Amino acid sequence: MSKGILSGMRVIEASAFVAAPLGGMTLAQMGADVIRIDPLGGGLDHRRWPVTADNTSLFWCGLNKSKRSVALDLASAEGRELAMALITAPGEDAGLFLTNFPPRGWLDHDKLRARREDLIQLTVQGDRHGGSAVDYTINSRVGIPYITGDERGAATNEAVNHVLPAWDLITGQMVAVGLLAAERHRLKTGQGQHVKLALEDVALAAVSHLGLIAEAQLGQQRERHGNELFGAFGRDFKTADGERVIVVGLTLKQWQALCDAMGLNEAVSALGERLGLDLNLEGDRFRARKELGAMVEGWMARHTYVEVAASLTKQGACWGRYQTLAELVTQDEACSVANPMFGLIDQPGAGKYLAAGLPLNFSGLERVPVGVAPTLGQHTAEVLSEILGITQAQYGGMVDRGLAAR
Amino acid sequence: MSKGILSGMRVIEASAFVAAPLGGMTLAQMGADVIRIDPLGGGLDHRRWPVTADNTSLFWCGLNKSKRSVALDLASAEGRELAMALITAPGEDAGLFLTNFPPRGWLDHDKLRARREDLIQLTVQGDRHGGSAVDYTINSRVGIPYITGDERGAATNEAVNHVLPAWDLITGQMVAVGLLAAERHRLKTGQGQHVKLALEDVALAAVSHLGLIAEAQLGQQRERHGNELFGAFGRDFKTADGERVIVVGLTLKQWQALCDAMGLNEAVSALGERLGLDLNLEGDRFRARKELGAMVEGWMARHTYVEVAASLTKQGACWGRYQTLAELVTQDEACSVANPMFGLIDQPGAGKYLAAGLPLNFSGLERVPVGVAPTLGQHTAEVLSEILGITQAQYGGMVDRGLAAR
Repeated sequence: MSKGILSGMRVIEASAFVAAPLGGMTLAQMGADVIRIDPLGGGLDHRRWPVTADNTSLFWCGLNKSKRSVALDLASAEGRELAMALITAPGEDAGLFLTNFPPRGWLDHDKLRARREDLIQLTVQGDRHGGSAVDYTINSRVGIPYITGDERGAATNEAVNHVLPAWDLITGQMVAVGLLAAERHRLKTGQGQHVKLALEDVALAAVSHLGLIAEAQLGQQRERHGNELFGAFGRDFKTADGERVIVVGLTLKQWQALCDAMGLNEAVSALGERLGLDLNLEGDRFRARKELGAMVEGWMARHTYVEVAASLTKQGACWGRYQTLAELVTQDEACSVANPMFGLIDQPGAGKYLAAGLPLNFSGLERVPVGVAPTLGQHTAEVLSEILGITQAQYGGMVDRGLAAR
Repeated sequence: MSKGILSGMRVIEASAFVAAPLGGMTLAQMGADVIRIDPLGGGLDHRRWPVTADNTSLFWCGLNKSKRSVALDLASAEGRELAMALITAPGEDAGLFLTNFPPRGWLDHDKLRARREDLIQLTVQGDRHGGSAVDYTINSRVGIPYITGDERGAATNEAVNHVLPAWDLITGQMVAVGLLAAERHRLKTGQGQHVKLALEDVALAAVSHLGLIAEAQLGQQRERHGNELFGAFGRDFKTADGERVIVVGLTLKQWQALCDAMGLNEAVSALGERLGLDLNLEGDRFRARKELGAMVEGWMARHTYVEVAASLTKQGACWGRYQTLAELVTQDEACSVANPMFGLIDQPGAGKYLAAGLPLNFSGLERVPVGVAPTLGQHTAEVLSEILGITQAQYGGMVDRGLAAR
């Protein structure tokens, strides 16, 4: 039995893009029954790139694994009525609704609560007023693009956008946090509620938590440091044979492992004396980063990747190889079925590929096998029957009226 | 009353750096009693940059807000015994332990479980075997640095490191997810467990969920697209007066708002016809991104920032201004006490500054006010008394033996 730690919990999801679907999928990968409701032709993200040659979205499939899919004509009153009935259906472990659509019309919390008083609704918003914002427009505001990328970019005031939608990914996990916390509270008090979570607030909170807001307010200005890790020693280097690695000396132990691996102990001591710095302190290593970088550069240039990897690994240093995505999927053991988080799935419409399950590993339960994403509307009849008691005949009528497919 | 949604829950934390402390702080900001245990002189992250002029870490303060701090001589058997007693103390809402230290020695799960059978321990790891890895070394492996930054970087195979420790931040939220899910399970079954969460797996799962692994395996190669958003239309532009903004047309609605705001409808229609593309489809907008970009560039170059902002806002377009951190903290209303997520705190050792509470807003409860970070060991006597019944006289003896401070 590997039903997952949230087995029994039921979540209804009306969502698109990254944050909300990822939040739902996180719960689904823990065994919750997550039912995503979409309009008949698919939601806003149904064809989001990357897509296969026949236009199946690998993005959509990636973010909706292990869910059930219900597709209804949500432009019709009858379709919306069915969706509301699913959202507010009874059951101690049900009554959880996740959305990133504006909480008005049929998604109005008060209207939904009138049908189920202890409903927990979580609404993901762009900004806290419900305004339009996505990961990339929020990222521009919080200062990160101006401190990312090559130091030479500072002169021309270059902004470097991130490729990873980091704010979406963090928000997705906070969605799961919010629903679990609210459900815990409901178990103890019987109280439901409307949880709101703005992408903008997630980003602002993160820059605050990392000390960047305090730093800016207290009068210091964070500069752009290219690939150098701020406040300690770490950056990328090229090996003699042109591979690229990153080494990090954040803790003293990591730093000593690096020095040992590269035989730099004496040179580093001498450098510390010359500069009047204590290179056992991370801050002083940052101050001496150019000089230290030059030493490491020299060592790297004299050794091949294989030699570098062997030395660093032997000393337990903290380092990584820069890999392209192609190298990651073909050469890195962690990105293969040797890692129990992964499964080889056969995704309808896309084919066989490696897909990740849940990074959390609960010792008391078996891992939930990695599931595929549903096809659009795959579970409509099944879900309507199970939760609302819609008979086959009734469903046939719905299909005839264009309310549901098939 | 604003005690928070997790009021009553108690979590013991032995941690350093970002992910584990952020996970604990997320629970603390929801009202859980999170008690961080550190060695007497402070943990590995106690002086992590950014720091103030007198070496108070704004980083540490940012990631440990609203917790209680216990400092003990953890090098001594007696200190470790006290820590173990705190971790395994009774209480239905207690018995939750969060760490990113190796689960051996006094942190060995079996040893701890021998004292409290239903203990929930969550261990954050670098890689899944417990090897050394940090956000930056994992980031190098998952392919992101090779698809970040200016397209010209592709020729010289430049890698662009992220500045935001995105993997740490995601992992921090997953810590909270894991603990809440495990505690829910314990409430229902009585079962405790050891939850493991590897930073490496978090990153691998994210690139899988976003479709990047599938894309790489199915034979496509994601290219570097500079500041252009993949698969739709979005990038940065300069206004006539040199400000920088990002505009995004991910959904059709967003795209139409952009075209309306810039008066580009006719030109876009003509372009679509000329290229044989349907620019109402996001993928086709990506295919035509250079031509569309040139049009938008022209419009932006003819308008000042104030004009651009007014037009885009009027049409409800999705856009953002690039701001430095200094601009963010001085000019953006969302980053001020006008945003109820923020509070102005007076952080001992650092001063007054704006700090963020929880992005999640639970309608059924008042917001928990933003708390300061404790000073190191501030709550040692109080916590030992409350949880272990250590008397003042006994505590005095501990101070005399160098086990605790003050």
